[in-house]
Amino acid sequence: MQPIRIDDPSDPRIAGYMNIRERDLAGRQGRFIAEGKVVLNVLFGARRFEPESVLLLENRFAGMADTLSLAPADLPVYVASSEVLDAIAGFHMHRGVLAIGRKRPADTVEALLDALPPRALLAVLVGISNHDNMGAIFRNAAAFGADAVLLDETCCDPLYRKAIRVSVGAALKVPFAIGAGAGMLLESLAARGFEQIALSPSGASEITDLARADRLALYLGTEGEGLPGTLLNRLKTVRIAMAEGFDSLNVAAASAIALHHFSDKVCPAG
Amino acid sequence: MQPIRIDDPSDPRIAGYMNIRERDLAGRQGRFIAEGKVVLNVLFGARRFEPESVLLLENRFAGMADTLSLAPADLPVYVASSEVLDAIAGFHMHRGVLAIGRKRPADTVEALLDALPPRALLAVLVGISNHDNMGAIFRNAAAFGADAVLLDETCCDPLYRKAIRVSVGAALKVPFAIGAGAGMLLESLAARGFEQIALSPSGASEITDLARADRLALYLGTEGEGLPGTLLNRLKTVRIAMAEGFDSLNVAAASAIALHHFSDKVCPAG
Repeated sequence: MQPIRIDDPSDPRIAGYMNIRERDLAGRQGRFIAEGKVVLNVLFGARRFEPESVLLLENRFAGMADTLSLAPADLPVYVASSEVLDAIAGFHMHRGVLAIGRKRPADTVEALLDALPPRALLAVLVGISNHDNMGAIFRNAAAFGADAVLLDETCCDPLYRKAIRVSVGAALKVPFAIGAGAGMLLESLAARGFEQIALSPSGASEITDLARADRLALYLGTEGEGLPGTLLNRLKTVRIAMAEGFDSLNVAAASAIALHHFSDKVCPAG
Repeated sequence: MQPIRIDDPSDPRIAGYMNIRERDLAGRQGRFIAEGKVVLNVLFGARRFEPESVLLLENRFAGMADTLSLAPADLPVYVASSEVLDAIAGFHMHRGVLAIGRKRPADTVEALLDALPPRALLAVLVGISNHDNMGAIFRNAAAFGADAVLLDETCCDPLYRKAIRVSVGAALKVPFAIGAGAGMLLESLAARGFEQIALSPSGASEITDLARADRLALYLGTEGEGLPGTLLNRLKTVRIAMAEGFDSLNVAAASAIALHHFSDKVCPAG
């Protein structure tokens, strides 16, 4: 693989990397920025995404040989000096390992659910708007073997640069689909025999008292407001016991505890 | 409480708030910046800290009446317009609720340990250098009733502005002490009858198989390198089971699972 040297920050071949900090917030027609060696390894092995190009700090090229050997042989790999790379990205890139990925056509919620095995663990995210939390939840989903993540349309994008980075690539690994609203997700899951449980500080039972259904969907809501009451009324609710006088747990921390508890390792098939 | 209006960003009365983003990284002679209403509530109730002053966006003053009623009556409360506040802080403060706190003389590790009850749960942090992780671990420690946190000297400062914010004030609530090194902490804990357990991906037993000793210290290490081998050799090691092919858990997520498991709610006294 021969690197292609970029000396002009306005070179059209690297236009997709221009000012990535601001552009992350806008739509990018199915494209996303992947960052760091570990994430690129996941991208090159992902079924649902394909790499479009790579942009490296020139002194990182040699150390990336193993990672790049996983990529298609005709993938363009651009290299640039630190000054040029910073001018392209719009801020100081101390790691200097970037790629642009492209989504293949996304699965619908129904198609994703229909492809699941008889025993499956899902996270269902409602209104998760913070990219750190989104990335951390995907990382926990991968760590504890969740089969997929469903999102309502008020969630932020798991393919935002920071969410992918915080997920350590898990956002490219764990299948996900976006439904119109939580009510529609609930109907689709009910039709396929999922037990549906919502995590809530006021949940009716303790999570550690619960056995795992073969098909289980775990709802997680926003930290401030939690899941809407209309949704909680239609779901079985569970809580994570906390110390007196403190009922505040970050949603990513809650997802770690709950997905760990319901993982096959802790709650194996009966 | 009469607010004191500040119109000049270089007013010496608010010098402690100047350019807080940069100054956070430097020493501040036992002072720290607390941010947000929830954190100020904790600060005003904390035994080990005292507030020195408050600086508010002028339109936040009325809504802060309940919080300010918890503060000493002679505490100076400064208010400023959005433009002046941004010029003071050095960046845009969209929340506009700040205070400077001062530490009272810190406990030594020995004094903190000697004040603990016969049954106690501790987190022991070694080399935690990321302020988000530090704040999240303190938040989990508070949520699951840990009695204290011990840190080795290579950890970052729990009273850094961002760590306090991410902890939602728990860094001001959960007692902590900083020891010279992990070896010294281990000796001090052993002398006081603590069972000492290290979380490690290669741990000898599953955490869910472990009962809780009355006095338990749980070691957490850096995410990249983990705890040093010399330390792991002297401790009982436990792992958190993960899915095949994925052995990467964020240290804050690991702390949530482990502290929840060992909390009095999940592992009550026998």
